Amino acid sequence: MLKEKIVRLAKKAKEASRELANLSAEKKNNALLDMADALIRNKRFLLEANQKDLRLAESRRLSSAIIDRLTLSEKRIRGMSDSLAEVAKLKDPLGEVISLRKRPNGLIIKKIRVPIGVIGIIYESRPNVTSDCIGLCLKSGNSVILRGGSEAINSNLAIFEILKSSAKRYGIPENSFNLIDSTDRRAVGYILELEGLIDLIIPRGGEGLIREVSRKSRIPVIKHYKGVCHIFVDRRADLEMAKRICYNAKVQRPGVCNAMETLLVHKDIAKRFLPEMAEEFGKAGVELRGCPKTRGILKGIKAAEEDDWYTEYLDLILSVKVVSNLKEAIEHITKYGSQHSDSIITEDKKAGMEFLKKIDSACVYLNASTRFTDGSEFGMGAEIGISTDKIHARGPMALEELTTYKYIIFGKGQIRM
Amino acid sequence: MLKEKIVRLAKKAKEASRELANLSAEKKNNALLDMADALIRNKRFLLEANQKDLRLAESRRLSSAIIDRLTLSEKRIRGMSDSLAEVAKLKDPLGEVISLRKRPNGLIIKKIRVPIGVIGIIYESRPNVTSDCIGLCLKSGNSVILRGGSEAINSNLAIFEILKSSAKRYGIPENSFNLIDSTDRRAVGYILELEGLIDLIIPRGGEGLIREVSRKSRIPVIKHYKGVCHIFVDRRADLEMAKRICYNAKVQRPGVCNAMETLLVHKDIAKRFLPEMAEEFGKAGVELRGCPKTRGILKGIKAAEEDDWYTEYLDLILSVKVVSNLKEAIEHITKYGSQHSDSIITEDKKAGMEFLKKIDSACVYLNASTRFTDGSEFGMGAEIGISTDKIHARGPMALEELTTYKYIIFGKGQIRM
Repeated sequence: MLKEKIVRLAKKAKEASRELANLSAEKKNNALLDMADALIRNKRFLLEANQKDLRLAESRRLSSAIIDRLTLSEKRIRGMSDSLAEVAKLKDPLGEVISLRKRPNGLIIKKIRVPIGVIGIIYESRPNVTSDCIGLCLKSGNSVILRGGSEAINSNLAIFEILKSSAKRYGIPENSFNLIDSTDRRAVGYILELEGLIDLIIPRGGEGLIREVSRKSRIPVIKHYKGVCHIFVDRRADLEMAKRICYNAKVQRPGVCNAMETLLVHKDIAKRFLPEMAEEFGKAGVELRGCPKTRGILKGIKAAEEDDWYTEYLDLILSVKVVSNLKEAIEHITKYGSQHSDSIITEDKKAGMEFLKKIDSACVYLNASTRFTDGSEFGMGAEIGISTDKIHARGPMALEELTTYKYIIFGKGQIRM
Repeated sequence: MLKEKIVRLAKKAKEASRELANLSAEKKNNALLDMADALIRNKRFLLEANQKDLRLAESRRLSSAIIDRLTLSEKRIRGMSDSLAEVAKLKDPLGEVISLRKRPNGLIIKKIRVPIGVIGIIYESRPNVTSDCIGLCLKSGNSVILRGGSEAINSNLAIFEILKSSAKRYGIPENSFNLIDSTDRRAVGYILELEGLIDLIIPRGGEGLIREVSRKSRIPVIKHYKGVCHIFVDRRADLEMAKRICYNAKVQRPGVCNAMETLLVHKDIAKRFLPEMAEEFGKAGVELRGCPKTRGILKGIKAAEEDDWYTEYLDLILSVKVVSNLKEAIEHITKYGSQHSDSIITEDKKAGMEFLKKIDSACVYLNASTRFTDGSEFGMGAEIGISTDKIHARGPMALEELTTYKYIIFGKGQIRM
């Protein structure tokens, strides 16, 4: 029953995607602006639905971190609304001529940007993902099928209903966005089987969810995986700058994927840098876990185990390692990193360029905080996530990354010889 | 044993890919030119190895189509050699700045083209795939792991050995290209498990192989699937042009994925067009299978069954359907097509533009043969295949499609507020 229901939904989403692909930018933008407004108009309804989820979460004794992510407030609703309004203002990515070739035989080959089709998004707890994904997919001409976590079902349904009735008034095809309203865990498996109906799956959530989705799916998946981000403070770093950046990357918002998880320090400046840095971190309540050399300098801190180097703490915990040179820093990041975001702090241009070249991560920084890996910070507007994959999209994914291309070829009767 | 061997090989390929990513274009091109020459220098060795495969194929009674694809000749070796030399001449795709943004906070964000890493190619029978893939992957800075069909193992090994010893002399890292020398069928399964070591899988071969690979793989797969290509002859077509193009698309080389498999004809011109077209096809020995209306015009031809519309014949067989209008043609292609290549023949600009817009295939043509869907014909040099997927690459895949990007970000101490 549930399976058939999901198949029917996906078929309708596919049909809607064909209509959506050729909708004018104006029509989509008008709808998006009213959808932004509709969230504010219906905030009371939304907060009430959210209260149901929160009461259930408390009775199920979910962690305070989950409850925090789940909670809606007037401010958070305002944020969701602003985000939709911003998406409306972004340039429409569709129809862009990516390249144009004229061949010796007279064929004109245009490579143009088109929507992907139907996107499936499987996510956990944060209700704003619902409105963000609906906005980005609508603007990029894709239908979307959303499957949120059971803990947020009432909030997600409320957001969905509000946006749907607004979009309908503006002539957006009925099944452009769809929410699976069942909390049955098998729904995810059914979605992942719909090769041919769903064109792309984006899982957003914990490591377990992403591993499960990518193992089961027959549909292409773009993984938004963990961020084990590093900062390497080189021997020729401006140490004041290094302190400021490292503090920002660890402390400003530790629970996100672009926060620093491992600090690498060149041996030549470790004795000077580490005690000062540790003092700053101490004030912010950061727990340090060090390699033997680090512990020789910072007495009394915990030892980092092998597992620590692979760990995304998402918390005020930091692993620290002293390295002999740039090469060792690069090797460490290559072995333990997650190819998300890594930074070098140095005034040595040659070392900086070598780091930028050899670190194979989505975002590699020179003298800046890893915290900038973000769609808005990159000037891409909102984001649907940050890809740690290498296929199709890398780093922040926004409108352009939700498109593909096709070739349209103009002939005058050419045949192949 | 075999599994461990493949894991070791993949690890070495990964290491080699890091070195390869930063090799100069000159070094790669010099190697490619010598590799092209080495195939000619060693043609006797190559032909002898091929003879072994051919003798085995005959004793195993493989089909004449397979034996034809398997056979090497002086001319085919020359073709493989020319192809490597051409790849050497193509522009190096690496390091290209795809976009450059300067943010209000002073951060400079460069999006640059980089290799994907390690590519796994699983293919059948044609030995030239071995040298083509080695050439394209080397030039685009990727390591490659090749797994060819058991029927071509001696030819593939010979090509591999020749290219390897040439590349070695030119300083190409040892494990840049790798061939699985076991014909054990389990090898494919082992390759598809190497998530984290292999970054992309490209299967090339029959439908069965591609389905199996995409079902089993934990690694992203770009499918090079079947081409059920259509030509729609509109009511306002130039019928002489239509005849020329349809003949070319069906007859010139029927065994390839961009050949026409279904002809759609507007009812208004069917009575005039079909008999003349059928006469041409008759001379070429094309078997026609028609819808009821077609059979009303072309007496005595076979009826097309529902399955025919889905079928890639790869042979001198063509299904033919009379449609009432453009809309019905588009609906037929949307339902039965494989999103590979489709063409409309018309002098009606509006109908042409609607077809180009609404047909969601990798390559959509106006007044030209579908046979042009090909890397060389598109001016991309050689090709590693033709993607029927929508993620990462669509249509002909060549050097650019074998790359991804990363962001390198230049700061002056910026932190996130």
